[in-house]
Formats: sequence, C-alpha cells, structure tokens
Amino acid sequence: MSAAPASRGKLKIAKLVVIGVGLIGGSFSLALKQVKAVEHVVGVGRTRKNLNAALRLGVIDEASRDAASAVRDADLVLIGTPVGQMPEVMAQIAPALGAETVITDGGSTKQDVIAYARRFLDGHFERFVPAHPIAGTEKSGADAAFPELFRDRNVILAPQPETKASAVRLVRSAWEACGARIVRLDARRHDEIFAAVSHLPHVIAFSLVSMLAKRGDAAALLGHSGGGLRDTVRIAGSSPEMWRDICVANRVALTELLDDYMDELEIARSAIQNADAAALSEMFERARDARSRWLLKKHA
Amino acid sequence: MSAAPASRGKLKIAKLVVIGVGLIGGSFSLALKQVKAVEHVVGVGRTRKNLNAALRLGVIDEASRDAASAVRDADLVLIGTPVGQMPEVMAQIAPALGAETVITDGGSTKQDVIAYARRFLDGHFERFVPAHPIAGTEKSGADAAFPELFRDRNVILAPQPETKASAVRLVRSAWEACGARIVRLDARRHDEIFAAVSHLPHVIAFSLVSMLAKRGDAAALLGHSGGGLRDTVRIAGSSPEMWRDICVANRVALTELLDDYMDELEIARSAIQNADAAALSEMFERARDARSRWLLKKHA
Repeated sequence: MSAAPASRGKLKIAKLVVIGVGLIGGSFSLALKQVKAVEHVVGVGRTRKNLNAALRLGVIDEASRDAASAVRDADLVLIGTPVGQMPEVMAQIAPALGAETVITDGGSTKQDVIAYARRFLDGHFERFVPAHPIAGTEKSGADAAFPELFRDRNVILAPQPETKASAVRLVRSAWEACGARIVRLDARRHDEIFAAVSHLPHVIAFSLVSMLAKRGDAAALLGHSGGGLRDTVRIAGSSPEMWRDICVANRVALTELLDDYMDELEIARSAIQNADAAALSEMFERARDARSRWLLKKHA
Repeated sequence: MSAAPASRGKLKIAKLVVIGVGLIGGSFSLALKQVKAVEHVVGVGRTRKNLNAALRLGVIDEASRDAASAVRDADLVLIGTPVGQMPEVMAQIAPALGAETVITDGGSTKQDVIAYARRFLDGHFERFVPAHPIAGTEKSGADAAFPELFRDRNVILAPQPETKASAVRLVRSAWEACGARIVRLDARRHDEIFAAVSHLPHVIAFSLVSMLAKRGDAAALLGHSGGGLRDTVRIAGSSPEMWRDICVANRVALTELLDDYMDELEIARSAIQNADAAALSEMFERARDARSRWLLKKHA
C-alpha cells in the first residue's frame, strides 16, 4: 500500500483500478496521470473496443475484462459503471479486494449504491467512500474523457458511520488532485437534490425529444429548430443505459418531482388555453428571476 | 423611395424605422449598418433608457417615442416588438405610412400577426411582409443586439396572396444582407412547427425553473446544479413579456403539443415508478438517436 493523501505529502497512488472506463472513470484517470498522482492504471470494461480506445488514448495503462483479478494489489478502485451494474461489480471484486484497498464510485445516486456496497462488499464496506462528481457532458465512452473535466467542480462525498477516516482522506485527496472541490452531503438529501437539479431535467429532455421523434414530421420539425431547442435537449444525448439506471435507482424522489412538474405544466397549460396573460407573466418572471439569482451567478 | 433590392444592385435603404429596439430589431439595424445597406435608422421605443442605450451603442441614429411621426418617409419599417403590442403599433402607424413604404415584422407567430396586419394596416397590407428570423439568445434589449446574430440563420417569410412581389424582394434582400437564408413557409404550418421546436421548449424551461423556485430550498437546490440544468433552462432567461405574448398568440397549436408532451411524461413517470427499465431504455434511446440524427448534424 503506497497511497498517501496529499495532506501528508504529495499523493501517490501506485495502482488505480477503474471499472467502467467511460467519461467519469476515464477523466479521473487522465486527471491523476496529468499531476503524476498515479503510477499504474488498470481499466476494466465489458467491450474490447472501448478498452482498446482507452489504451490507445493513454487513458489507462493496462486493460482487463476480469474485475476480480484486476483489483488485486490495488490501492484505489473507482467503480465508474452505470449504477445498475454496481451490485454485480461489487459482488465480483469483494473476494479479491486487499485489506487496505480503498473503494469509491462515481454514481449519480447514493442511497442505492450505499445499500449495494453494504450488502456486497462485506468487510470492505468500511473502506468504501460513496462519491458523486458533479461533472459530465452528454458524451460517453473512453474517447469522451479529458483531464480537465473535474476542475473547479464539486464532488459530493457521503461517507457512512462505518467509513474509515483514512479511506475518506485518500478519496478526498484524489479528487482534489483532479482539481475538484469536496462537499459532504447526507445520502438521502443528495438523492433529493439531484433528482431536482439533474435527474428531472434529463427526463424532461429525453421526453421532449422522444415525443417529437414519434411524429411523422419529426425530420421537418427538427430541421427548423434553433439554439433554444438545441440547448434544452443537449442532455438527451446522454447515455440511455446510465440514465435508465439512475431513474430506476432514484424513483421515489424522482416521481414526486415529476408530479410537481406536471402540476406546474398544467398551470401553464390552463393559462395558455385561457389566454391568461397575467398568470403567464407571473410564472415566466418567477422563472427568469430565479435563474438570474441562482443560476447565472454560479455559472458566470 | 430609394430602397433597391440587392438583385438590382447593392441594397441601399435610405430610411429604416425599427419599432422595438431589442435583440432582433437592434441586431437587424446593426447588421445592415455593417454592410452599409442603410443610411439612417430611427428607433422607436417605450422607454427612454433603452432608446438612449441604443443611441449610445450606435444601434440607431435617431430615437423617437412616436411611431406615427417616425415612419413618415420610411423605406422600410421593422416591427420588432412583442407580438401582443403589434395591433396597437399597426393602428398607430397606418395613417402615417407612405404609399411605397414596406413593412415587415420579427414576430415568432405568424397567423395572428397577419390577421392584425390585415385588420390594422388597411391599404398598406399589400406591402406587409410577415417574417420570423430564427435567431435569438435569452437576452433582450438594445444592449443585447449584435450584427452577427442572423448570419447563416434562417428567416421565414410567409407572404400572403395580396403581398406585392417588390415588397417581398426588398425584405428578402435586407435579410440576405444580414447574412441570413430565406425560407418560405405557410403561416399555419409555421405556427405548428415553431410551437413544437421553440414555444414548447420555452414553456418547458420556464415551468421547470418556476416549479423549483417555489420550493423553500430553491437556493440550496440550484446551488448544486451543473451544466445539464444550466443548458436545459437557458431559455428561461428570455423575456417574460415576449413569451407570454407568443404563448397566447399560438395557444391552439401549443396546448395540443403540451398535451402530447404531458402524455409522454406520464409514460416516463409510469416506467420510472414501476422500475420498467426496458420502457425507459426504449424512450431514452429513441430520444438520443433522434437528437444525433436531426439535431447534431444541423448544429455541428
């Protein structure tokens, strides 16, 4: 075990294993390589094509399709798969994990991932640090990865009562080495917040394009679109598999928010049908003001 | 009358009047000034503040708060106000319009604007060319205007049976001088198409931010947002007044599409609640494929 957090000197991870070499896992590897915080990165994946791309692009140093043998002697394991695959991944690696190996994840939901880890990582649960980097693009796969993805972005950590402080320190140092800021959040609150600001917007965007695509005149319609539709549905280009898993994992919080959202759309629909200009003005002004107060400053 | 379309030599508009010096009207003026296609631009508006900004920024050469006196001797009048103000504007200017003056607009709906023009422009209707530039940002006001706004963008023209060919030629030449491409479209079809690809996305974005803003924890929620929400709701920063007017003007087409959209959200909601991964995959894949087939190419 040669991983030392930055607070005790420069972070040096001798062996990092990234399971799921996509946008998140690949960018994590590239960022740590860029600051020379890692010596050797093993990528684990399901398809040869993506692993070969990852090798070719220098995202990983070694490829493996066997997670269990890959994690032997690892200092840090990042599970970067869609959350629906995590139970199987955890069950596969648990028997092969070393007594000092720290495990973390990049999943967009936390309560379900923590429950899986508690069940499948056995005695290693105390070295599992639940994490969620708030970064991404609509692209996926190793060739979408780039080392600056996490710079100045938040990474949520949701350690549990059992989680060892030394494991949290290592994961914290690794994300800080990627240029990210650490934010601690309760797992349940995390899932509520991201249902509202991330999962709901994705369902909204996917549903809009899906509805338009079902129409016979979809090609003609979309040929007339401008920058508004383009930006509103950018995230409908995201991985269907990843988002299917997130929606299922966070279904309780998400269905509640979908109900609130459909209520709001009903209000808009009534106002439009009744040509109720005052009601529309009130709604649109509330939205514009909230955006400029809370979103513009943040993304300036 | 010294306005000559480009096809008969270089376009030269001696006097352009822009009523409503906002993003569209201001950018139209700046673009024509940049290619020296206009000699003198009079801006008409409701507030001194915006007109002063337009003068200071060189968007207009002269400011007026009286539309009727401003349009005298004009070669071309662009009505760039929100569509809800157009009936009043048209009624004001009709008695003062010259026998050769060409009138056009920049409204996002066409059937209502054409009906207003038919009713309020009297004998001048044959020189009214209904138009809709497919360009914009979420910003408004003269200080948001810039001359490149229309470059390589479509401008829809929806001339009526009465519309004089010479009027269409002048408006066409002016938009082409701004760098835009001309597309002709039936007014009813125009309103259907833009209900789907523009008006609905705006209602979706405004409703999402409005719903989140009503929550007690809105500040905390939005403080955790990332690039996905930012892009999805960019257009919720658009002018509430302009969009209120558009929604009311195009309410028939828009309420139908809102119904289709809420049906699609219901399908998503059921699939999420029932953890129906197959149904979610199908919807999300349809959306991702449609986006890459029809939107990515267009906006590459």
